[in-house]
Amino acid sequence: MMRLAPADLRRFVGDCYMAMGMAEDRAALVADSLVQADLWGHASHGVMRTFWYAARIASGATRIDAPVTVEGGLGAVTLLDANDGIGQVAAQEAMERAIAAARVHGIGAVSVRNSGHFGTAMYFTRQAAAAGCVGFLSTNASPAMAPWGGREKRVGNNPWSWAAPAARHPPMVLDIANTAVARGKLYAAKARGEAIPQGWAIDAQGVATTDPADGIAGTILPMAGHKGYAISMIMDMLSGVLSGSGFGPAITGPYMPEGRSGVGHLAIAINIAAVRPLAEFEADMEALIASLKSAPRGEGVEEIFYPGEIEARSEARALAEGIALPADVVTDLTEQGAALGVRFPA
Amino acid sequence: MMRLAPADLRRFVGDCYMAMGMAEDRAALVADSLVQADLWGHASHGVMRTFWYAARIASGATRIDAPVTVEGGLGAVTLLDANDGIGQVAAQEAMERAIAAARVHGIGAVSVRNSGHFGTAMYFTRQAAAAGCVGFLSTNASPAMAPWGGREKRVGNNPWSWAAPAARHPPMVLDIANTAVARGKLYAAKARGEAIPQGWAIDAQGVATTDPADGIAGTILPMAGHKGYAISMIMDMLSGVLSGSGFGPAITGPYMPEGRSGVGHLAIAINIAAVRPLAEFEADMEALIASLKSAPRGEGVEEIFYPGEIEARSEARALAEGIALPADVVTDLTEQGAALGVRFPA
Repeated sequence: MMRLAPADLRRFVGDCYMAMGMAEDRAALVADSLVQADLWGHASHGVMRTFWYAARIASGATRIDAPVTVEGGLGAVTLLDANDGIGQVAAQEAMERAIAAARVHGIGAVSVRNSGHFGTAMYFTRQAAAAGCVGFLSTNASPAMAPWGGREKRVGNNPWSWAAPAARHPPMVLDIANTAVARGKLYAAKARGEAIPQGWAIDAQGVATTDPADGIAGTILPMAGHKGYAISMIMDMLSGVLSGSGFGPAITGPYMPEGRSGVGHLAIAINIAAVRPLAEFEADMEALIASLKSAPRGEGVEEIFYPGEIEARSEARALAEGIALPADVVTDLTEQGAALGVRFPA
Repeated sequence: MMRLAPADLRRFVGDCYMAMGMAEDRAALVADSLVQADLWGHASHGVMRTFWYAARIASGATRIDAPVTVEGGLGAVTLLDANDGIGQVAAQEAMERAIAAARVHGIGAVSVRNSGHFGTAMYFTRQAAAAGCVGFLSTNASPAMAPWGGREKRVGNNPWSWAAPAARHPPMVLDIANTAVARGKLYAAKARGEAIPQGWAIDAQGVATTDPADGIAGTILPMAGHKGYAISMIMDMLSGVLSGSGFGPAITGPYMPEGRSGVGHLAIAINIAAVRPLAEFEADMEALIASLKSAPRGEGVEEIFYPGEIEARSEARALAEGIALPADVVTDLTEQGAALGVRFPA
């Protein structure tokens, strides 16, 4: 593992994107969203993904200079078209507009069509929390699961996030995908020769399995069974269908070098002060969090966390100690940066 | 089992509530919400709960004549106080106001404080769908689970629902609580001498268990583990904290004859036509549903359903054949109705 200063990583990633032709402000936004994911301990959405977007940028599937255009709306609602551009750019614009609308109307919603992968949803919903709002953001994603009872991938993991301010505490944040487990855990179990728990996967015939090899040949199950399937469909409805974007099997994932992404998003901000004084809301959030953290703990549990607390704890540590990257990620970033003439920070 | 006409049941339940002193329109609303749950096949939220509310009404904990008052708001947002009244009355008012605000502002939100148990969330969100909106409704509830890592009940199951219209199909509907399983299933497994799956419950020491007796002595786990815990906390924030109502351990459940309920709700309606023409949205919903229903099925699966379809199928059957009630529920309703001078339909 190598420890790097967040600012150095941010500059490196931004320079790489500028070398790919991205405007400075957009490169800085995408770089910050990736580094921030590392700060929160979400390495899978961090700088290791820097060049993940590169193939789609090179093929023109992601148009890095596409404008985000206003295509419709009414009152507190706006429809944006991302014109096959960068997901982070569209999500940022959407959340800013939702917050601005919430200041005027008490609540604001921004629907986004023809966008791309935006990284980590909580990067955007936490901005709403910082602005005194409750924030919501959803996206749809490429097929990862079968519909409940099926055996062929047709349903995305369709991530969604809520965030709210919590006074002296970091915000309360939910940010989840609707799959029971990341596919990588099946490969890891197979490598260790271990069985997987019921509820993780079905085999190619659509039958529940505890054999990781059968699960890899089949598909991942939704979290919480049929409930997770239903949640994922609702997020596709909110993100893809409402916006007039792609939905269901029509979405192309960020791993594919070509093909329009087609993903849509929905951003909502609720102005807390439209309901009650923000200070009262925050005092109650403190009391709610205290009721969780003071609960009697299970055997072997050292601390109870409220949602979003682990990420905030991780960030504080990484800001002090630097972001730890595995050697193979450092090698990969160094080589790919060098090919663009961008030097990886020593 | 006895089959009864929905209209007869609706009249019986409404008459019982009027005999308890409830105004006719309120009695009709609560009766309809219970009968509708039976029509959807959700017997646990159906007419068997008729007298469940009675003890709280008799004690004055639920004030059946309490007005729903406007206490604040801004633009598209309204704050209502249910003044310890009937949950269904408050939720109905909230959803109607959210829909009306969405017509003007594109989106509307209504926060409700000091309410009570409102029955089935989808009873209200489906009204938004019928009005050309996407509807959302959340509520908090009395403690049912430990915070993740804890061993004492401090987190409600905090149900939430989304609904959206789907053209020639009945609406797409999500309506879930955030517990892994209803507590009754632990008692059933214990009675059969069977183990329960991992992920259902922890014992009194907070350790995961597959012994139903240990789970009964302990607490139910959230659906999807820590994800369900986080979702439930977010629903408490949206319902209880945002509205300035009770939250966390301060909520009194509908099983308790006394004590202020303290639950809050949040209703949101998004006017689909503010984003894109409703007919286009609905055509895409049909396509999305078709992609689910046409998926290759798993072994032994006869049909794939989209969220909300099973309830709609159940309703069509029950409207044709009547609502089937178990003999013990019929006996109970007959006796309790007779005590109020209301005759159970033959």
